[in-house]
Amino acid sequence: MSRRSLHTPAPDAATLRARIDRARAAAADAATDALLIGPGSDLRYLIGQAGGSFERLSVLLVPATDAPPTLVLPALEAPGYADVPTDDLGVDVVTWVDGEDPYRLVADRLGKPGRVAVSDTMAALHVLRLRDAVAGAEQTLAGPVMRELRMCKDAAELAALRRAAEAIDRVHARVGEWLRPGRTEAEVGADITEAIVEEGHTHADFVIVGSGPNGASPHHDVSDRVIEPGDVVVVDIGGPLPEGYNSDSTRTYAVGEPAAEIVEAYEVLRRAQEAAVRAVRPGVTAHEVDAAARDILTDAGLGELFIHRTGHGIGLDVHEEPYIMSGNDLPLQPGMAFSVEPGVYRAGKWGARIEDIVVVTADGVEPLNTRPHELVVLPA
Amino acid sequence: MSRRSLHTPAPDAATLRARIDRARAAAADAATDALLIGPGSDLRYLIGQAGGSFERLSVLLVPATDAPPTLVLPALEAPGYADVPTDDLGVDVVTWVDGEDPYRLVADRLGKPGRVAVSDTMAALHVLRLRDAVAGAEQTLAGPVMRELRMCKDAAELAALRRAAEAIDRVHARVGEWLRPGRTEAEVGADITEAIVEEGHTHADFVIVGSGPNGASPHHDVSDRVIEPGDVVVVDIGGPLPEGYNSDSTRTYAVGEPAAEIVEAYEVLRRAQEAAVRAVRPGVTAHEVDAAARDILTDAGLGELFIHRTGHGIGLDVHEEPYIMSGNDLPLQPGMAFSVEPGVYRAGKWGARIEDIVVVTADGVEPLNTRPHELVVLPA
Repeated sequence: MSRRSLHTPAPDAATLRARIDRARAAAADAATDALLIGPGSDLRYLIGQAGGSFERLSVLLVPATDAPPTLVLPALEAPGYADVPTDDLGVDVVTWVDGEDPYRLVADRLGKPGRVAVSDTMAALHVLRLRDAVAGAEQTLAGPVMRELRMCKDAAELAALRRAAEAIDRVHARVGEWLRPGRTEAEVGADITEAIVEEGHTHADFVIVGSGPNGASPHHDVSDRVIEPGDVVVVDIGGPLPEGYNSDSTRTYAVGEPAAEIVEAYEVLRRAQEAAVRAVRPGVTAHEVDAAARDILTDAGLGELFIHRTGHGIGLDVHEEPYIMSGNDLPLQPGMAFSVEPGVYRAGKWGARIEDIVVVTADGVEPLNTRPHELVVLPA
Repeated sequence: MSRRSLHTPAPDAATLRARIDRARAAAADAATDALLIGPGSDLRYLIGQAGGSFERLSVLLVPATDAPPTLVLPALEAPGYADVPTDDLGVDVVTWVDGEDPYRLVADRLGKPGRVAVSDTMAALHVLRLRDAVAGAEQTLAGPVMRELRMCKDAAELAALRRAAEAIDRVHARVGEWLRPGRTEAEVGADITEAIVEEGHTHADFVIVGSGPNGASPHHDVSDRVIEPGDVVVVDIGGPLPEGYNSDSTRTYAVGEPAAEIVEAYEVLRRAQEAAVRAVRPGVTAHEVDAAARDILTDAGLGELFIHRTGHGIGLDVHEEPYIMSGNDLPLQPGMAFSVEPGVYRAGKWGARIEDIVVVTADGVEPLNTRPHELVVLPA
């Protein structure tokens, strides 16, 4: 019994220490006495290890003051954190064993806080038990604090995202080897899954092969549908590299010549995606990037067929802040990384999507995925 | 981009409907106005689909009254629920699109509840936003309600757990093909991972190959340590079958003749595990099963080396209720399924563990894993 833990390259202690210090400061700015960070990407960002148990509480307590952070762990999970430089980070480690009450242990360390923020991914099991143990404190989300740290990537993180993008681009370059009439989406997906690992990912996090009508479901995965001549096929794939940063890229393929309606709509989609990428620069809002794509589709009468936001941030998580959507007035800043992925979905018939990861630079944008944006027509 | 969703055999509508009705009744018994069940095994148990998005709210609202349950979904996730027989289940489906407030939508459906229970796995992101949207209601955990339903497995669930146990037993039967001196834990683990899939699992959920000193870390996974003659190796492996039910079994292997101290301790461990299995029958408490193993180890002076509880329930989750641990006075009931897995860990030197999944029968116990319990001595 166990959850698989992660033993992968982590940032050095100086980088992690600086992140913890920034987390303290951001917590103080948010009038929050402490952050309680459970297993997941926030924890990995701060200490280089994501952890992984579920029902036993593991949590990093980061006070907004100069007091040392405390890593509370089930004793039997402690070996999984052996690579964390807790001494260099000034982090106290406190372990507990089955039968002890870890929530009481956290409460004792916290004293009498007024406001405590829990990580967005923490399970309700722990959230509500911490609420009861730390009676009198207001519980808030740590997400707004952590996003301030994680949204703008440093040079090493951007380098990792570039490597991830290059890896998934190499997979897209090979899709023609596998995608042909008579094969099922699942068969094509299995080949892609293998290639995602061959090209350097630890595993495939998602593999969407949406052929014909299945392409109209943006979060389809694969099915036993047999690919037919004339199908348009949405291929949206990605996963993490060993250092934890993710790839995510979509291209749309045609198996044989597609119908004129699709060719026409696809060209509008291509212009919409290009316009949204070109709109990216510091100071522009997430809303405006979304609008850049949406307006072009709407002007062409296709706005109703674009049924999701334009993009999502990416890093240690495949979906993270900033979300590129209508109503999000967040101004873009250098170092932000996110997808630009408008799509057009004709329910029951076909779909198309184009997705690149882009980075906000000092004065514009750097697209990380560089495969051509044209509809890729494969032999039928 | 997407999270991979699940399209696998689900129970029929009558079974699901009966489960939802039991959930309503259990909620009413717990003086809870409604259950809010997010993606995960609780959702899969109730509607046959686990769901999977993170930052977009997906939730099944189950009222304690006769009012229809409501499945609230992001519009773009709806196709992933196409196989759910919502009409037969009497479940209303309400979708929302990016930019809408799904928490308000849930609050409107709930009216003015006094107490609302959220599923144990629901992320804090949703727990706290629901707390704020459903102002005035007390939030509790749905775990205690859901465990009443899920702890005791029906005949189909037990059959699935038997198939899972047989599948992992077939993998253990082949460990001698891969485990030998000169290979790394990671190499052996890769072979085991492949075999877990070959034998019928959808994937390997965890693969622990703890050789020599690494065996003393109960939640080790694999490392680059090279296996040496004389090593004792803990192999703890499992994963889900397509229908969702999990395997989990540990055997301990010796590569060449092990040291006398280990042989002696292992024999005590074997007796402890056997005693705990024999203690299982209706009416006996989880605490007593734990004690049956622990007492034998303690009497032999090994109690301090058994650093975790004796077991955990298993089903759609690898770890679920009931937990077989000191202080848990829950009386066992027919249909409960859990691991019995005492271990002995000599820090820095070696470890050993024996783990079977067992089921409580009308008058005793049915062990699902049937590989021999002796230390398996392989050629050095």
